[in-house]
Amino acid sequence: MYSFKNDYSEGAHPRILQALINTNLEQSEGYGMDAFTQEASRLIREIIQQPKAEVHLLSGGTQTNLTALAAFLRPHEAVIAANTGHILVHETGAIEATGHKILSVAVSNGKLTPEQIEAVLIEHCDEHMVKPRLVYISNPTEIGSIYQKAELEQLSQFCKANALLLYMDGARLGSALCSEENDLALAELAAFVDAFYIGGTKNGALLGEALVICNDSLKDDFRFHMKQKGALLAKGKLLGIQFRELFTDDLYFELARHANLMAGQLKQAIEQAGYPFLTHSPSNQVFPILPNSVITKLQEKYAFYIWSKVNEEYSSIRLVTSWATSQEAVAAFIDDLIQLTNKP
Amino acid sequence: MYSFKNDYSEGAHPRILQALINTNLEQSEGYGMDAFTQEASRLIREIIQQPKAEVHLLSGGTQTNLTALAAFLRPHEAVIAANTGHILVHETGAIEATGHKILSVAVSNGKLTPEQIEAVLIEHCDEHMVKPRLVYISNPTEIGSIYQKAELEQLSQFCKANALLLYMDGARLGSALCSEENDLALAELAAFVDAFYIGGTKNGALLGEALVICNDSLKDDFRFHMKQKGALLAKGKLLGIQFRELFTDDLYFELARHANLMAGQLKQAIEQAGYPFLTHSPSNQVFPILPNSVITKLQEKYAFYIWSKVNEEYSSIRLVTSWATSQEAVAAFIDDLIQLTNKP
Amino acid sequence: MYSFKNDYSEGAHPRILQALINTNLEQSEGYGMDAFTQEASRLIREIIQQPKAEVHLLSGGTQTNLTALAAFLRPHEAVIAANTGHILVHETGAIEATGHKILSVAVSNGKLTPEQIEAVLIEHCDEHMVKPRLVYISNPTEIGSIYQKAELEQLSQFCKANALLLYMDGARLGSALCSEENDLALAELAAFVDAFYIGGTKNGALLGEALVICNDSLKDDFRFHMKQKGALLAKGKLLGIQFRELFTDDLYFELARHANLMAGQLKQAIEQAGYPFLTHSPSNQVFPILPNSVITKLQEKYAFYIWSKVNEEYSSIRLVTSWATSQEAVAAFIDDLIQLTNKP
Amino acid sequence: MYSFKNDYSEGAHPRILQALINTNLEQSEGYGMDAFTQEASRLIREIIQQPKAEVHLLSGGTQTNLTALAAFLRPHEAVIAANTGHILVHETGAIEATGHKILSVAVSNGKLTPEQIEAVLIEHCDEHMVKPRLVYISNPTEIGSIYQKAELEQLSQFCKANALLLYMDGARLGSALCSEENDLALAELAAFVDAFYIGGTKNGALLGEALVICNDSLKDDFRFHMKQKGALLAKGKLLGIQFRELFTDDLYFELARHANLMAGQLKQAIEQAGYPFLTHSPSNQVFPILPNSVITKLQEKYAFYIWSKVNEEYSSIRLVTSWATSQEAVAAFIDDLIQLTNKP
Repeated sequence: MYSFKNDYSEGAHPRILQALINTNLEQSEGYGMDAFTQEASRLIREIIQQPKAEVHLLSGGTQTNLTALAAFLRPHEAVIAANTGHILVHETGAIEATGHKILSVAVSNGKLTPEQIEAVLIEHCDEHMVKPRLVYISNPTEIGSIYQKAELEQLSQFCKANALLLYMDGARLGSALCSEENDLALAELAAFVDAFYIGGTKNGALLGEALVICNDSLKDDFRFHMKQKGALLAKGKLLGIQFRELFTDDLYFELARHANLMAGQLKQAIEQAGYPFLTHSPSNQVFPILPNSVITKLQEKYAFYIWSKVNEEYSSIRLVTSWATSQEAVAAFIDDLIQLTNKP
Repeated sequence: MYSFKNDYSEGAHPRILQALINTNLEQSEGYGMDAFTQEASRLIREIIQQPKAEVHLLSGGTQTNLTALAAFLRPHEAVIAANTGHILVHETGAIEATGHKILSVAVSNGKLTPEQIEAVLIEHCDEHMVKPRLVYISNPTEIGSIYQKAELEQLSQFCKANALLLYMDGARLGSALCSEENDLALAELAAFVDAFYIGGTKNGALLGEALVICNDSLKDDFRFHMKQKGALLAKGKLLGIQFRELFTDDLYFELARHANLMAGQLKQAIEQAGYPFLTHSPSNQVFPILPNSVITKLQEKYAFYIWSKVNEEYSSIRLVTSWATSQEAVAAFIDDLIQLTNKP
Repeated sequence: MYSFKNDYSEGAHPRILQALINTNLEQSEGYGMDAFTQEASRLIREIIQQPKAEVHLLSGGTQTNLTALAAFLRPHEAVIAANTGHILVHETGAIEATGHKILSVAVSNGKLTPEQIEAVLIEHCDEHMVKPRLVYISNPTEIGSIYQKAELEQLSQFCKANALLLYMDGARLGSALCSEENDLALAELAAFVDAFYIGGTKNGALLGEALVICNDSLKDDFRFHMKQKGALLAKGKLLGIQFRELFTDDLYFELARHANLMAGQLKQAIEQAGYPFLTHSPSNQVFPILPNSVITKLQEKYAFYIWSKVNEEYSSIRLVTSWATSQEAVAAFIDDLIQLTNKP
Repeated sequence: MYSFKNDYSEGAHPRILQALINTNLEQSEGYGMDAFTQEASRLIREIIQQPKAEVHLLSGGTQTNLTALAAFLRPHEAVIAANTGHILVHETGAIEATGHKILSVAVSNGKLTPEQIEAVLIEHCDEHMVKPRLVYISNPTEIGSIYQKAELEQLSQFCKANALLLYMDGARLGSALCSEENDLALAELAAFVDAFYIGGTKNGALLGEALVICNDSLKDDFRFHMKQKGALLAKGKLLGIQFRELFTDDLYFELARHANLMAGQLKQAIEQAGYPFLTHSPSNQVFPILPNSVITKLQEKYAFYIWSKVNEEYSSIRLVTSWATSQEAVAAFIDDLIQLTNKP
């Protein structure tokens, strides 16, 4: 049984494991004050071309989102998110547990537009309602779409003009930036947002997300918030070593490119086999619509999520690739799909 | 510069790193549903002799404390802790951030007694005050003392009789259980408390604490709370693999015994050199009281915390040992201390 | 300028003011432990025919909702509400501020059905999502509709069968129960829900809502929660005296009947003048759809909210009546409307 | 049985009741936007000589404290309070329920000094601990002592120099300001603090506290916080009318002077009868130390709290006077005490 369920089924890229072995017995300061973390931060500041940005390494996406948003917002301030937003549905109310409402916007492709945000602002007009303050977006979105440079720039301008913070969840940021359709450089992206995070867990690390705070007004005392939320690891160097490695010799992007390459092969073959897709998804998630009979057969050899029922006979599934997805597994899946398609 | 600052300066014990390497490319279920985590849980249930206990693996001590206490308490319920309690001072108000007051009890040796708890209960008698509901203790305590079996049994009985939950922070539990003065078996300890955690970060793991919930009434839906607090790692197997290894072939206790052995050598030598100690500390922390001039000299070669000023000429320092503390470093420290003592 | 903006523009019914005067210098116990409050509670328990129900008097609707829901729910549990629900939009995130997500259900008439709730349950199936636990309904709803006995009974059965709590916001409960279309006795209603509140502020009191907890499992320590949320008034008798008066000689229902009568006259006249309504609203709120030109003219003499834009020429407005609405004002409004309609 | 238990046993001063009657049927805007509240705010801004201060009317002390502190603090920021502070013990963890730790300082007379605060600042030095940000004081304190102008000025300067906010709980502020020992004008007091509240509940109102925000940086969006915490009354004019009356013709101070006068008579008589006091309390609370036998006899005719056990034979009691305390009751109490003293 080979799994295409997600991009966190395996451990870490071998270079990362090797870096952990090489540094294992070096004594370091605790709680992220170690030299590895400092170096990882420096590398990230360099690549985003913001020497004054603050970089903090946390353990996972939910932890990063809740720590950041709780730190950035006053009690009456709310978040605006697409109805597909990870924080809205799939984080067990983590943001609300810190006291903040998330205002949901119905979108068709996972992405938010200035017009949609404006409608929320117009509706929330006085002290009987929460005050929208932060726009949460994901790149790629939860359904695999990515933001084009022009789209992000417009969002950014709208937010600045309306005293809104723009925050990007980058759990799979590598895949977005390495997409064939991407026209955004990481440094450009960083200039458009107030804060964002670079996901490590889903791109080669054992665990770890690098939160980048670009907006000066959000930087004060952030480590207090991390400690309060349980997000300061005693052996913080575990995160520092991994991100130092990921941002050395382009490893982070190399891994994302591999994931996208595997997803691309799947997409091309599925398309050639005559199946449509639920969404246009130029990153490492693929959402083909297949006959239920084919899905059942595939499930004998492959693990994946059934995403949604399309009609009585067809459903969409989600296939996720990663740095660890093997060429052989992709080829085998394609072969099996073609066979199932030809003699159903 | 050799550091005795804490027991999390190095990485993981080599056996743990090797286990991570060996399993690195095995595909596993995410979020702690993997076989490694199941096996680690089984091993822990076995050693505590509670087949129905629930075991959850989390990333760090503060995260474990805040997730557990927030899950166990209703909004008006409060925690009772010694004034040295880690949650009271050194976790940036993490418990209060989940809405719960911690009632502080002044103690001399880090340990709570039924009499002290009773005084808190008497004082908190109506709805104008919080309702004490959970007693937080640490073993060893934050100043290195340990609970004797009779003490813990009395606490346990008092708590049961007064509808109080008893929770033990075991960040350094291995060191307590392997102390020469310990008379508590882990299974006995587990029978006395409602929940406790077995610290991995400070005893050989890269990160990780194993929360054990013994009381049935506290088990429901705990994974919801973990997810909500950002405590479910996508690659949960990272924790499972480590705890499986720690509880295989007695590794966990072997590592703690080494830490205690190193601390014992330090203590014996310091005593022989004629210095007193701030507290009686039969675990892996040592709090000698030294002349400031000696401290200054030691700081040239060793890193450690100055714990408290004793008088104008003397201060206490904290020396912490771990599974990684080298015999050579301890011997060198002892030599240097003897030399500094003889020719000050 | 006469106001139909809401049902809290005036002070208290004269009988209530007189009761306050009569008892003003009697010394009473504080914080709701006074004899007036006890008597008010007894009267309410009697009318709902639940001798074991707990009655608590609070100051306002938002306070009642947030205190009750925060007391009833564990941290990972969520509320289900219609998208028109007052707690969802118009209480500044008060529920989320206590840590709980509200799951919004799109409804057309302000009312929830078992089918809609079931869809939410199906969607929320594991620990990556909040756990739906409490269904929030209002009677009358925020748009004036009321629950029929059969509807409430079905909701109640569905909730019981699915381990959901059913909570009713009764800010305008008097108006619902005195509606011509109502077929629910208060005692029946109380038997269907786990908790509800009887609104005083909008039906003759200076302030005050009577929260009734019917479900035994929700009663423990409720006064702790009230105190913690700032909802225990030192001079609790201020609320007790008012509710004792409201539930003496049927005053509460008499006042609601007057409000409904005034609303009925408005509705009948508006209908006869040929205007449609935005919603079917058999309680003390009326939502006529009028030409913008007529609205503008009416605004010269009457205050009311413009509720929504219907098209370029028409908008709906909200007219609210209360115990204090004068027959003269209603007649004058009707006259003016007829005149404006005939010679626009 | 006459009660000296507290200063909220009776209703409102007759002038206030009359004002409610006079304005009862005037239609007003809801939620504190009415003309009465505006006028009350103006009167308070005038008396404190701060035309730019913001005044908000809330229902009670706990509500005011929790709404203000939650609005003023970021999640990691903490409050410093005397160990007798009302928020620390007697508000059921209301501040912690909003997420903030209160750091307790042991004091002998209810009052905080710069030295004591500085010790807390020194101890809380990094991100592993909460960040002290707001100093909470009460005037008079919970044990009846009052701040002298020089004391408050020093506190104020210390706070400003250390980026601390200074907040005063004025539940019984009238009594402090009208104390014979007071040397502070209300306008001076207002200039020393960042925010404070003027208690109405304990000085003649049915309910109500006037929060005054002097520091510009704390003003933004405060009404959002009030609504979120359930502190915006629909019939906000209920509070506005009362405070307008209290600050018309010096009524507020007249009532406080009467309370102090009654307390003074009690104190003088008790002193002449030869009894000592637990604390020096120049306001409307008196804490005499009496033989238990005398206390038992007094309890037959008077209600009051037994404050603390002094030794086997003596206890301290608390007598509280108010605007409603009758001269006759005080005289009777004194007579009874003298009799009990002479023939025990």
